[in-house]
Amino acid sequence: MLKYRAEIKKLPTYDVIERDWNIKINANECNMNLPPIVEERVMGRLSRLAFNRYPNTETESLAEQLAAAYHVQRRNILLANGSSEILEKMFFCFGGRNHKIVYPQPSFSMYKIYAELSNSISIPFDLDENYCLDAEKFVATVNDNKAHLAVICAPNNPTGTHIPLADIEYIAKNINCAFVVDEAYIEFDGRSAMEIWHKYPHMIIARTFSKAYGLAGARVGYMIADEKITEITGKVFMPYHLNILSAVTADIVYQMRHEYEPRIAMMRSERDRIAEQLKKMSVIQVYPSATNFVLMKYDKAVGLNEYLANIGIGVRSFGDAPRLKNCIRVSAGLREENDTFMKAVKDFVETHTEE
Amino acid sequence: MLKYRAEIKKLPTYDVIERDWNIKINANECNMNLPPIVEERVMGRLSRLAFNRYPNTETESLAEQLAAAYHVQRRNILLANGSSEILEKMFFCFGGRNHKIVYPQPSFSMYKIYAELSNSISIPFDLDENYCLDAEKFVATVNDNKAHLAVICAPNNPTGTHIPLADIEYIAKNINCAFVVDEAYIEFDGRSAMEIWHKYPHMIIARTFSKAYGLAGARVGYMIADEKITEITGKVFMPYHLNILSAVTADIVYQMRHEYEPRIAMMRSERDRIAEQLKKMSVIQVYPSATNFVLMKYDKAVGLNEYLANIGIGVRSFGDAPRLKNCIRVSAGLREENDTFMKAVKDFVETHTEE
Repeated sequence: MLKYRAEIKKLPTYDVIERDWNIKINANECNMNLPPIVEERVMGRLSRLAFNRYPNTETESLAEQLAAAYHVQRRNILLANGSSEILEKMFFCFGGRNHKIVYPQPSFSMYKIYAELSNSISIPFDLDENYCLDAEKFVATVNDNKAHLAVICAPNNPTGTHIPLADIEYIAKNINCAFVVDEAYIEFDGRSAMEIWHKYPHMIIARTFSKAYGLAGARVGYMIADEKITEITGKVFMPYHLNILSAVTADIVYQMRHEYEPRIAMMRSERDRIAEQLKKMSVIQVYPSATNFVLMKYDKAVGLNEYLANIGIGVRSFGDAPRLKNCIRVSAGLREENDTFMKAVKDFVETHTEE
Repeated sequence: MLKYRAEIKKLPTYDVIERDWNIKINANECNMNLPPIVEERVMGRLSRLAFNRYPNTETESLAEQLAAAYHVQRRNILLANGSSEILEKMFFCFGGRNHKIVYPQPSFSMYKIYAELSNSISIPFDLDENYCLDAEKFVATVNDNKAHLAVICAPNNPTGTHIPLADIEYIAKNINCAFVVDEAYIEFDGRSAMEIWHKYPHMIIARTFSKAYGLAGARVGYMIADEKITEITGKVFMPYHLNILSAVTADIVYQMRHEYEPRIAMMRSERDRIAEQLKKMSVIQVYPSATNFVLMKYDKAVGLNEYLANIGIGVRSFGDAPRLKNCIRVSAGLREENDTFMKAVKDFVETHTEE
């Protein structure tokens, strides 16, 4: 009888095998691959890589570029396998037995898992009825619980909610524990917490290449934090955890990030167009989004999700998840994909609305 | 004052930044990049990848191929970022407060770190004076300590020592806890523990693409274990932890693994040639190796290491590490590189031997 670590039992089993959707708008991915000019340079760099050598200059080059772009020091940056690894490790570093972690609910579903994996006490903080974060109450929850770590997702996934920078600063100013700002979708929003980061040495900004920069498959993320934090938490990232293929890809993508501006603008405008169209249907409630996706609530969401799946459109349905009953999240795909999706929703709603 | 998890304090800070060596034979890497025919197919596949999509069929394809090659089920396989991630996660799963982990000493230096990171109690098991593993004593150590996890590295790094399959089976038969066999270098040795794996459901085989298959930069490894083990331990590997660029690269490399047979044979023969040449110098003790590297002991090892570094040859010196004082490990590089290395050693030894 093998004896496992106790906290593993609480963890769910993941099933990430996907159907082969005609239109895949369920994972907040960018629905475009590398821009051709970027692809050409990525392929050129990959073809010159020493696959046989452990990662070294490749990851350094990416880290140095990021440091220069953010006007911070190299030692303020930690790279990782997506911001997922950043979050997992921050929960691990500040969590543990009897350590409390406050995070919003509903928000990124992995926060709960990372808390369990790190054997921490989860303190989910309820967003209000419009999924907005009440900064004062959040601060009180963190302080009353003597939390070891506070996490917010700005803008929030899966609700799309913008969190004003003033609120983030209010939180930073009024809590003393480590404070992770998960900015996975910040490129679709506006001002980043990086603007105020230098004032708050307990603030950790997590970023990813998976969304706006369309590298979900490459798994590259990073964090920016005070050097004392990166020095100590850096110890739990194992040597060579980031591979060189992904590192050079992200390095080039970031060098050429101006190439992404038009497509980020396009994704924002498609997001707004989807929201506008959905709002026209009175049975559907649409939440304001500062991301590349839209959350909608509809009392026939389960049926709609099934209908969409049957015609090959994959969206994210939350079933009976807490505070997300009857919610569907749809990522802004390509214009034609979005048209097809909206037509399908309209058809379903028209058929299912009693006169 | 930020409050970190206590066990982090014990962890060392890594410094993996490398000098730009003329001859790099310090990390047991394969000193050849992808075979051209493999490279062509890898580049073709990379150029058709959907970088923007989360990993899905790419990692499945690799896992299925491995399962077929080993005549096991898909569910017996877990993929990871190098066998490093496999080892880290197995230490985590079976380790924890008051959980004991037995591993050989000297062996892979990360075992100690993984034990600390997982807050486990390390029980290092001393190899004998020739760095051989006494299987009976190892079993007694595991059982007397009621260990939760036993680990061996077969063949052993950094000593190169072959561990007979009969000894591995003896251990498997006589312990009940989880038993990890780290086969990072098995392709340079002989019979794998996979031969007996089906008989011992507590046996976990860890493998890597970093050494014989020359993909150290891509970070791909995997484990083979009973489905109950993969089901439970699989929960601690986060979704999408393996990126698609590395997954398709390893997938093609494994499909074309016959291309690697001549170079594996070459590395073995170079390893033997290095050992033979070094043995001719009576001041140097050479340990038998079943890997792609050779461990030597020499009372002027510190000086030799410095001398080699000054002429641009990077080898692995162990300084004052336990049981490895005055030891240098040298990976079998290309024939010309090995010649240059051996000439340099000879020069140093001749200059530093008192008549």
